[in-house]
Amino acid sequence: MRTIAPGESLIYRFTATRAGAWMYHCSSMPMSAHIANGLFGAVVIDPPDLPPLDRSYVLVQSELYLGPQRGTVDVDRLRAERPDAVVFNGYANQYDHRPFAARVGERVRIWVVDAGPNRATAFHVVGSQFDTVYAEGSYQLRPDPGAGGSQVLALAPSQGGFVELTFPEAGHYPFVSHSMVDAERGAHGIITVTG
Amino acid sequence: MRTIAPGESLIYRFTATRAGAWMYHCSSMPMSAHIANGLFGAVVIDPPDLPPLDRSYVLVQSELYLGPQRGTVDVDRLRAERPDAVVFNGYANQYDHRPFAARVGERVRIWVVDAGPNRATAFHVVGSQFDTVYAEGSYQLRPDPGAGGSQVLALAPSQGGFVELTFPEAGHYPFVSHSMVDAERGAHGIITVTG
Amino acid sequence: MRTIAPGESLIYRFTATRAGAWMYHCSSMPMSAHIANGLFGAVVIDPPDLPPLDRSYVLVQSELYLGPQRGTVDVDRLRAERPDAVVFNGYANQYDHRPFAARVGERVRIWVVDAGPNRATAFHVVGSQFDTVYAEGSYQLRPDPGAGGSQVLALAPSQGGFVELTFPEAGHYPFVSHSMVDAERGAHGIITVTG
Repeated sequence: MRTIAPGESLIYRFTATRAGAWMYHCSSMPMSAHIANGLFGAVVIDPPDLPPLDRSYVLVQSELYLGPQRGTVDVDRLRAERPDAVVFNGYANQYDHRPFAARVGERVRIWVVDAGPNRATAFHVVGSQFDTVYAEGSYQLRPDPGAGGSQVLALAPSQGGFVELTFPEAGHYPFVSHSMVDAERGAHGIITVTG
Repeated sequence: MRTIAPGESLIYRFTATRAGAWMYHCSSMPMSAHIANGLFGAVVIDPPDLPPLDRSYVLVQSELYLGPQRGTVDVDRLRAERPDAVVFNGYANQYDHRPFAARVGERVRIWVVDAGPNRATAFHVVGSQFDTVYAEGSYQLRPDPGAGGSQVLALAPSQGGFVELTFPEAGHYPFVSHSMVDAERGAHGIITVTG
Repeated sequence: MRTIAPGESLIYRFTATRAGAWMYHCSSMPMSAHIANGLFGAVVIDPPDLPPLDRSYVLVQSELYLGPQRGTVDVDRLRAERPDAVVFNGYANQYDHRPFAARVGERVRIWVVDAGPNRATAFHVVGSQFDTVYAEGSYQLRPDPGAGGSQVLALAPSQGGFVELTFPEAGHYPFVSHSMVDAERGAHGIITVTG
């Protein structure tokens, strides 16, 4: 890693050697402020045996600590761990206004990365059960008739993984971080399932 | 899900298709306040291969944010994530006063669900080791002579699972969330083991 | 467990029956304050099949809540969950000043125990990937060409485990809790890798 001046660019070339949902972010100090300003992203490397399915989404959860208009992050709130918003893909509640779509019986994969900078996520889809859970490079749960299901994918900051699920009937299925204070700060969206 | 008026009732009928320890809760807004007011519970669906054992307990951890006497939850404290108490099955320290019982050598299963609404649990039995850990529909650890043991079952809000353990000698074994501030807020009980 | 007076000593003898990275701590009340004053340690019991490798380190993460000079922990800050520092092995940033050492291509194992008393860790080595993750007595990930990698070992208070990794090129690799506010409170060190 190295520092570049404003206006310069730097291209990373790399060979993807291991599967997973990886967080990348700049490494300028203080890192917490740069991440909280939005300087991060996700790289998804499919595991080799990933079965095809109908739909796939990627969600990155992060926190906003609002500074002045047109300014940068409020470092005091960041250090005090008092986020103004917790969001998926940068905007609070954006998928309440533009829901994801799926059809009854379709198999849906949702990749989730927790960019933090500080808070874990407890990713949950209300009214549904995950039959497949993959996190940090390995399967935690695979489909197996009669066996278990999962309600929450828990990820610490910078962890990533995916869940798979199907919807048995039409309806509006909210997805949230089940740390409810974060769901109400904006870590909330909807999947609209049609028949 | 749908809203019902005070005095009305609604019966849910469902077929349990997947094993696990599931949290249920009402879905009225704001959900965090309804959960913090106690409107939640646990449904335990045994996995098909669960061996018989001597004793089984279910613990649901949750947080209290105390409003006025005879009133409801203090929403400001809830949003600020400052719980007055963290409890098992609704009351702080209740199992200090009425301990669980077990005998030396008995195999004990403890199901745990973290209802939140906000905080994770780090479930631990002081002086003991878990040889079996199951969470979110799959085994994380099974007995295997010479192999590993677990000291804490970590659950994010709305996750569930169980641990199994035996007690090698008589005594008073506290169980806690090993996030010590929560143990001291009331997430503390005792298992009295007799010879 | 029993209480002993200042000046007395007590020797524990035990047979290690299960593998893992175990936290020990005194059990005087209030436990949170005793742990926050540093009265804890780690016992590492190798699993039986642990392959030999080049280097092994043990890190214990904990929080400091600073009381007066020559005094003890600030209990108010502890209860309010406002740590002054989050540290590895007792001192903030100590391994920035005295980095760990490794050579390109060497296989390195890092055991991690989260002593808390309150906060989880999200252990990460910047610029590297874990091909092996073991936590709470079982493997979460093992090397498997083409398969997954892990970026963070998440541990709740009193959990323990290890990661294994190799460094493909020389450089300074920071290790942190990727809960960035904690990394900036002192949960930060460096591994200096030479060719």
